[in-house]
Parts: sequence; structure tokens; C-alpha cells
Amino acid sequence: VSRIDPRDVVAKKRDGRRLDEDEIRSVVLAHARGDVPDHLASAFLMAAFIRGLDSPETVALTRAMVESGITLPLEGISRPKVDKHSTGGVADGVTLVFAPLAASLGLAVAKLSGRGLGHTGGTLDKLESIPGFRTDLTAERMERQVEEVGCAVAAQTDDLVPADGALYALRDATATVPSVPLIAASVMSKKLAVGTDLILLDVKAGSGAFMKTVEDASDLAGACAELALGWGRRALVAVTDMSQPLGEAVGNALDVTEAVEVLRGERQGRMAELALEFAAAALRDLLDVSHGEARARAERAISSGDALDLFRRMIEAQGGDPAVVEAPEKVLPSAPVVVPIPAPEAGYLAAVEAEEIGQAAVGLGAGRARKGDHIDPATGIVFRAKIGDRLDRGEAIGEVHARSEDDPRVAIDRVLAAVRVSDREVDPPPLVYGWRDAQA
Amino acid sequence: VSRIDPRDVVAKKRDGRRLDEDEIRSVVLAHARGDVPDHLASAFLMAAFIRGLDSPETVALTRAMVESGITLPLEGISRPKVDKHSTGGVADGVTLVFAPLAASLGLAVAKLSGRGLGHTGGTLDKLESIPGFRTDLTAERMERQVEEVGCAVAAQTDDLVPADGALYALRDATATVPSVPLIAASVMSKKLAVGTDLILLDVKAGSGAFMKTVEDASDLAGACAELALGWGRRALVAVTDMSQPLGEAVGNALDVTEAVEVLRGERQGRMAELALEFAAAALRDLLDVSHGEARARAERAISSGDALDLFRRMIEAQGGDPAVVEAPEKVLPSAPVVVPIPAPEAGYLAAVEAEEIGQAAVGLGAGRARKGDHIDPATGIVFRAKIGDRLDRGEAIGEVHARSEDDPRVAIDRVLAAVRVSDREVDPPPLVYGWRDAQA
Repeated sequence: VSRIDPRDVVAKKRDGRRLDEDEIRSVVLAHARGDVPDHLASAFLMAAFIRGLDSPETVALTRAMVESGITLPLEGISRPKVDKHSTGGVADGVTLVFAPLAASLGLAVAKLSGRGLGHTGGTLDKLESIPGFRTDLTAERMERQVEEVGCAVAAQTDDLVPADGALYALRDATATVPSVPLIAASVMSKKLAVGTDLILLDVKAGSGAFMKTVEDASDLAGACAELALGWGRRALVAVTDMSQPLGEAVGNALDVTEAVEVLRGERQGRMAELALEFAAAALRDLLDVSHGEARARAERAISSGDALDLFRRMIEAQGGDPAVVEAPEKVLPSAPVVVPIPAPEAGYLAAVEAEEIGQAAVGLGAGRARKGDHIDPATGIVFRAKIGDRLDRGEAIGEVHARSEDDPRVAIDRVLAAVRVSDREVDPPPLVYGWRDAQA
Repeated sequence: VSRIDPRDVVAKKRDGRRLDEDEIRSVVLAHARGDVPDHLASAFLMAAFIRGLDSPETVALTRAMVESGITLPLEGISRPKVDKHSTGGVADGVTLVFAPLAASLGLAVAKLSGRGLGHTGGTLDKLESIPGFRTDLTAERMERQVEEVGCAVAAQTDDLVPADGALYALRDATATVPSVPLIAASVMSKKLAVGTDLILLDVKAGSGAFMKTVEDASDLAGACAELALGWGRRALVAVTDMSQPLGEAVGNALDVTEAVEVLRGERQGRMAELALEFAAAALRDLLDVSHGEARARAERAISSGDALDLFRRMIEAQGGDPAVVEAPEKVLPSAPVVVPIPAPEAGYLAAVEAEEIGQAAVGLGAGRARKGDHIDPATGIVFRAKIGDRLDRGEAIGEVHARSEDDPRVAIDRVLAAVRVSDREVDPPPLVYGWRDAQA
């Protein structure tokens, strides 16, 4: 039993002093166990928010969070293990492509994922639009599947880093969410609880991301990289663009269709490009090949059909209908009402409020306004225009996929209110703003 | 219904921005009503602690606290009304003397008091050691007694500033107690809820006080004076010495005996002096007489027996045995074991850990370690030595009044460990460090 009074720890942080590992545990781990009440944990969070946590404090916080639950060592997997995680964006189906692509290149991808909330979609929800697909794998079954197939995507259970769920709910309720060290600890705790050789983290920046500016995203990326380093783990952290939807599909079945098209090599663009870049980064890092060679292998895995075949095998292993990779339109649920979105005026697409596009999809039933909400896998938005594209007035820049006749009007209005068209040419934003590399 | 989201208010203070009155009400008053949960109120308290509250914010906080409950306008009282409050110390029986003394000078004293906690005694507990004395007066009865007799001391009920009780408990649990604006709001809310013409506030400074330094006490005094000014009320705030017990008695019946002796004019010293100074200050301020004249009237009220007679009448009005003013030793409970405290060495008394003396009395049953604890009215400590006094080794510097034979040893050890004797002469500390005057 700790002799540290958690109130003294809170007072110390309140006064701007550094906390050691035992002190942080006496608040955070004790809170997860129910020994520290919410009101004291809230006071700690506010003090940590205002006074900040330095790198060793953030490592200690994350360790205490990880210690609050089970971990997934994945020791039975023989191939180099990589985890890939995005901080959340709109039309971000990269994981659906990355997991089979990296696995087809000889890496092991054991991906634990959460459900979507608000304007950001969830990988689990997307995969579950495939009839029969199960994400409730036990740790043993997941590990076996990764060893045999090369990849698995499973639901993160409540006993993995339970402190994160408890603290996040409290932060949301106490205005202590937007703190870089607290976000870094939350994001990384769930990655560090899983035994992988490399963590690939995609920190999104822009109108559809939690971090609205590249500067804020870079701060978070740096904190996450430092955290991995302080823990003794290897992480590569990219800051990537979320000033517009990354891919085209904002939904669930729609995202699976897009991922299948990318894996078939039928669809280029920013989403495909980012998936290839992440796969190449993982390959270069874990197999010690050059970036050029890694990138070429990743492209070949697409053109050869190896990556698509891997996706088929993963879907089959998790109970889903593998025919989805040949004819997604026949296997996946589709919405009864599909209405084109017309370009509001002629000119160049200059800006997109990506979060609004995500919220329009939530309005169609494709996402959750609140935790636990039911989602409609068939609905959503396809938004094809990219910043810099030349548009003609009335040209279809996407479609709304809706359950009822009345829904598309609201969604189209919302999408059109979220785009800005300029009569001057506009440069597309970069796809990747930069990488942070933390070497253990 | 307020449209303000209390989380936005907390976020604003978190970021160091000023809050307006409606924003503060949306947290504080809503918390008192149960509409804001403890964890959000805790986050607010920590943000307010670290970022501070300026004078208008502190007024707004106090207003919200006062609005959480009933107030006592005392409009039926015809004489000038004065309230006197101490922030708490050891052997601080000034209120027992001040109330009848000021009343005998033509002022009205309607004093609501709380119970003692920890090393500081409570006026209610002291008065209740008088057999029959009742402090549970209704507002109507209290007002009538003040109008007829001149003074009353009654228990502060839970419906007066309930927000203070709720917030104080939360502050104690979340390391947010020692904040000047939060303390000022807590202290002053209970004074501002009562309709008086003058608030006399005694902010104690030193080893037996909450504020250990004169500087901290002055900050609090200034904040309390500003708060009264911002509210439009008149307050005189003194910073007085608590580097040693003020009077001699640290207990309950022992304090009443000491007060009776002061009111009889049989006992001089720092406690009597402070009571006279407060009475003179009230008289000067409310009746517009000079300090010299006010002081002379106060001294005459003692020597004439008027003040003692007023005390007798107040005790009688509240059901207590009035014979206590003639023969306290016959009326009040007394402890079966009385053991002298010997001076530990020869020399000059140089320093006293006054809080330790208070805690030694708590150990004898004279005070409460926890809220709701039972107290023993007969026990306590009499500590006669004052800083600067010349002591002989073994000379009795006081007595322990105990319930059992075993108790005095522990108490004496604790008292002796709390005193420091020097072989060089020591100057006594000032009694009053200064006054803060806030003119509405």
C-alpha cells in the first residue's frame, strides 16, 4: 500500500513541481482502482493541464495507465510486428489498406481498434459492414490469426488500459481534453500496451482533425515520439493533412469498397498514397531496406494482388464474406437513396471544413453522435473533390447515400456549406507534413 | 435556465481568462443546486486556485455562494449592527467578551458561529459548556433577542450559504484550500449573508493560525476588505498575532471562565486588550466617536460591570445558568484531573507552536479531530506563559485539565515540545499588526 497521500501529489503539481513515478501512480493507478475519487482525479487533471507534464512525467502517467489493465505481449508472433494508428480524421480508411498490405510484405499487423465517435469513423465499424465479420477476438485467437494470416483487426476490450477510458470521460467532463501530454498518454497507452516492434502513428492536422493546426499536431507528434522513446519503444510519427477528407468515402460499407479498390490498384489518390507510404516506412524500418526498395515492394504487393489476397484471407479468418474483395457491391449493404452532390459554383476547390463533412455523414446515420449509438453501415457520403480541383458549376463532386428520401437535402446543404470555391487556382496541401522519429 | 455550459466556464478560467458574474454562477450556484457534479466543480476550483480570481470575480463567487441559501437581513434591529469574526486561532475567546461588551456600549451584535474543528476552538462549543445554554435559535428569536438584549450568539444553520460547506469539503479533498480568493469568499460569504452595518474581521497570523505569516494574513485581510467594498458593505479587518495562544484557556468551560474574568475586569492581558480594541473600533466606526473616547467607554463598560451584566442577560436569554458570571467554578463542568505544566528550563519564552497546544487540547477531548466528534467541555489546557516572559525551571506555566489520570502526560509532553526557551531576552510580538479598512 502506498504511503503517498494523493492530495499531496495534487498539491505538488498545483504548485508547478515535478512528480515522480510513485506520486503519479498514487493518483492515476489508484483512480483506476477506485481508490481515488473522481473529484480528486479532476483536480489532478486540471493541475496537470495548466502546469504541464514533462517527458518523464508523461511516461510515468502512461505507465500507470497501462498498469491499470491487461497487456498484449504478442510473444508468439514470429514476424516483425507493426501497429498503425491514426488520431482520427474524415475518410481515413488507411488502416483497412495498410493492414493487409503490410502483412503481404512479411510484417505482422495486430491492430486493436475502437469504435468511431463524432465526425471520425472507426475501423471496427467499417469492417463490420462486411456480412459475418467479427471483431470480438480473444487475445489468443487474435495472436494465432496474426501468426497464420499476417494481420488481424480486433475490438479493443475494456480491460486494456481501463484507466484511459475512465480518465478520458473525466477529461471530457472537466474541460481538460486539449492538453498535449494528456492526449499523448491517452493515444500511446493503448499502443504501448501491445507488444509490437514498431508503432506507426499518424497525427492528423487540419479542419477534420482534433488538432486544427500543423503546429499543434507537431507538438502532439513530438510528445508521442518522446513518450515511446522514454518507454524504450520504437515509434515513427507522421503529421499528415486533414484539411480535407483523406479518401473519398465517409461511411462504413463505402469505406470498405474504397479500400478494396485501392488494394486492387484501381484507385490512386491521397489515401492510397498514404497507405503505401506507411507500409514503406514500416518495411524500411523493420526489414532494414532502403525507402526506394520498400516503396517498390509495397507497390508490387498491390499490382500483384498479394495485398488484396491478404485482405480476403483476413476477412475470411474473422468470419466475413471474402467475396467482398471481388464484388463489394454484391456483398455490402447499400443505401436505397443515392443523390449526387452538385458543385455550388465554377472555380477551384479552395477549402473544406472536413469535420462538417464527417458530421453530415453522422447525420445520415453513418456515425455516432454519442457513444453507444447505432450506426447504419450502408449510408454515408462520397466526396470526390480535392483542394485545388477545377470544378464546373453543377458538376457532381460526390454523392449522398441515404436511408430515406428526405435525408440527402440536409446532408447536401451541410456539405456545400462546408466547401469554399475560389476563382483563382489553388495549390493542393501537402499530404505528409513531416515525420518524427524516436529511436529507443 | 442558464445557457452557459459550465465546462466552457472552467475552460476559460483554465486558460487564465476573467469570468463574469453569470459564468461564475453557472458553476458555483449550479453546483450548490446539484446541477454541476463535484468533478467539474473540482476542476473549476483547481483552475481558480492556479489562475487566481480578481476582485470582481471574487465578489461574484461570493454572491453566488450567498445566493445558494437563505440570508439574515436583521431589518428589525434598531441599533447599529456589528458582526465580529476571527479566522481561527488558539485560546481566542475574544467573541465571548466582545459580544456583551459591544452590546453594553449600545451596539447590536448578532453573531452566527460555527463549531470548532482541529486546533481552533468554536464559540458555540464554549458557550454550550454553560449548563442549559442553547445556540439553536431561529432567525426570528435571534433577531428579537438582539433587539431586546443587545447580543446573541447562535449556531449557523446549514441553509445559510450551503455552497460554502459543499465547496469547502471539496477544496479540502482536492488540495485547493490555501487560495486567498477562495478563503476570502468562504470567510466573507457567511458575514455578507447577515445584514450588519459593520463587519469586524480578525485575520490571525502565526503558528496557531491558518495563515502562518503576517504577509499571507495581510493578503487575506486585503482580499476580505476588497470583497466587502466590492459588495458595498463596510468592513474593518485586523491582522493580529497568533504566534502564541491569545488568551490562556484552550478548552471550553475554561474559556468561559477566562471570559468572565476579563468581563469582571480581573484579568488583563492580550485577550482582554484585543476585545477592548475591537469594541473601540466598532464604536468609533458606528457611532462616530474618537478612538480615545471609544476606548475609554469600552474600559468603563468593563469597570462598571455593564459588560458583565450584558453577558449575564445574554446567557439567561439563551437558557443558560446566569450564575456562571458570579461563580463560574460552581456552574461549569470541571475536569477531575488537573496537573501543572512545568517550565522545561530557565530562560525567556522565545517561541510557541500554538497549533500544537491546540492539538494537545484536542487530544484531551476539548476539540474535534473530525467534524461531528463529541467534545468534553471540562477538559483543556491553561497556558499562561507569553513570549518574552522570564521562566524559572520547573515553574508552573499552566495546567492540563484532563478526564483521566493517563492523559496529562501526553499533553504535557506535547506542550513542552511546542515551546522554545532562550537564555537571551525576547521581545513580545505585537498584538495587532495592522488594520485594513474598506470603505463602501
